[in-house]
Amino acid sequence: MEFDLINQFFAPLCRPLHKSDKGIGDDAALMTPKSGYQVVTTMDTMVEDVHFVKGAEPYHLGWKLLMVNLSDLAAMGAEPWAYSLAITLPESLAHDVSWLQAFAQGLTKANQTLANPIPLIGGDTTRGPLTLTINLQGQVKQGQAILRAGAQAGDKLVVTGTIGDGALGLAVLLGHEGLSLNETQSKGVLRKLHCPLARSNVASFMYGAVSSALDISDGLLQDLSHLLQGGSLSSQDRLGAHLYLERIPLSSAMKQYFQVSGDYSKILSGGDDYELLMSVPEENWQVFQQRCQSIGQPVYEIGEVVSNPEIRIYENGLLRRDLNELSGFKHFK
Amino acid sequence: MEFDLINQFFAPLCRPLHKSDKGIGDDAALMTPKSGYQVVTTMDTMVEDVHFVKGAEPYHLGWKLLMVNLSDLAAMGAEPWAYSLAITLPESLAHDVSWLQAFAQGLTKANQTLANPIPLIGGDTTRGPLTLTINLQGQVKQGQAILRAGAQAGDKLVVTGTIGDGALGLAVLLGHEGLSLNETQSKGVLRKLHCPLARSNVASFMYGAVSSALDISDGLLQDLSHLLQGGSLSSQDRLGAHLYLERIPLSSAMKQYFQVSGDYSKILSGGDDYELLMSVPEENWQVFQQRCQSIGQPVYEIGEVVSNPEIRIYENGLLRRDLNELSGFKHFK
Repeated sequence: MEFDLINQFFAPLCRPLHKSDKGIGDDAALMTPKSGYQVVTTMDTMVEDVHFVKGAEPYHLGWKLLMVNLSDLAAMGAEPWAYSLAITLPESLAHDVSWLQAFAQGLTKANQTLANPIPLIGGDTTRGPLTLTINLQGQVKQGQAILRAGAQAGDKLVVTGTIGDGALGLAVLLGHEGLSLNETQSKGVLRKLHCPLARSNVASFMYGAVSSALDISDGLLQDLSHLLQGGSLSSQDRLGAHLYLERIPLSSAMKQYFQVSGDYSKILSGGDDYELLMSVPEENWQVFQQRCQSIGQPVYEIGEVVSNPEIRIYENGLLRRDLNELSGFKHFK
Repeated sequence: MEFDLINQFFAPLCRPLHKSDKGIGDDAALMTPKSGYQVVTTMDTMVEDVHFVKGAEPYHLGWKLLMVNLSDLAAMGAEPWAYSLAITLPESLAHDVSWLQAFAQGLTKANQTLANPIPLIGGDTTRGPLTLTINLQGQVKQGQAILRAGAQAGDKLVVTGTIGDGALGLAVLLGHEGLSLNETQSKGVLRKLHCPLARSNVASFMYGAVSSALDISDGLLQDLSHLLQGGSLSSQDRLGAHLYLERIPLSSAMKQYFQVSGDYSKILSGGDDYELLMSVPEENWQVFQQRCQSIGQPVYEIGEVVSNPEIRIYENGLLRRDLNELSGFKHFK
């Protein structure tokens, strides 16, 4: 079964990397790294009924699976190189041509958003409950990766786009009432939920400009806290932050929802946004902002890193200590 | 949850690779390849109720998960470098300390069979039906990887150990009757099923000696057919083989089972053996055999590659055309 599937739907996603490289068809894939580069590896899994609902559009699954991995790589300032796919399919989907085709199409279209699309180089196809894993490889010049560690007190906190739309999209998908969105707004946040866009375009600008970065997948406060801990696994915060609510970029849908509900939870702890959160030293900010603008990528300053190790949230100059509680996880990740 | 789990059970499996490298705790892992080396990547998934039974020993799962990936890497003649783990756990196991501990212990012990144990560098922990994926990275000197393609008519077909024990172990596990094994034999084949040993020790000898290789995971005939197709996905056989049944190395358990049953299917199409199948040019055979013996690794000549594109199976000089049918898959892989 594995070979049939690979042949029909995934083989078109593979292309040679380098003359001496080997992709699908051997026990392992073989890739030649660029001289003076390091290898960057990330892996993300999506499970039915946990990360997506039963019956979800296969196109969206393929798109999002690749994008969430690309987002991790972008957060490291690395360029995408190649990916492997481990796909566990239930009996009902294993021979569903239209499902497989749409899933492969989602991968393809997500890949085509890259300046240099990357090949599928291998993986594993198994039978079982629908579970999708990508291992994505990237490359970055030796010593130029952007880590979670690196922020300094005084750095600006910067994001690449509107926050909270993933969570609002999920509320639309689950049919929550009282969201007060019009059709265009609902469609917009659903699109952001299903087809997020990794900020791969920014990755090449980050070295020398950005002191630390990660992507917002768990929620703004949760991920900010990871950034302030510098990627260390200890719970000891080393730095703190001031966050200014009125500066956080919001979509028209989120503005509408917020106006009616006054609910900050989707903005502060929603997750599933895949925007980058970066710390940018004051002296680099103007040039970095201009370079991002030159490729049509807006960046927004939403706060700053401080030495006092706690997160303080301000709204129009007033401290909103009550909002610090909003750091629950949206899902188990 | 992800961080808690990683911290407690998986963090001890991570160790720094290189001074400038980063493992778990960032968006992606960062690794510095050796100059003049290529990167080799493989990925294998194990799903409950498909690749292992419900209630399987977590130690065995951790061991086997790493070993099946190491086996793919060994078949490429590559040295192991680092691995990522995507683990999807049901609620019942996510907080089961003894399960998690034993699983991590299985990974650790399998890793310690390597001359140079490798670090766990990242992955993803998700909730859902038990599904285990490892992405394993290796390195190999530029141009020295052993591919499935490369066999020539006249090459010897060589395996690294007894064949069919994985399938016989599965029959014991499933309580099949009429196997006629004593307790020691049953334990032996169960051990081979649960705790196979990848032939990583041979990998460094392969370049210059072996013209092609793969590991026997789907079954001897099926994998031989892949080798003869040279890893190409087309069904057009380019080469053929003569296989001599009486030369295939068998465990005492398999000899016993075969004597009673006369059943060749576990030997020829059992799979789950993780021995290497290699083609070795005549002129390299003696030196290769001696180098393997010098590290205590037996190698067995079981046939030869021929130009006529079909597989002919002989038993004590007699053609056994009837056995060619035995090429079914044991599982979906």
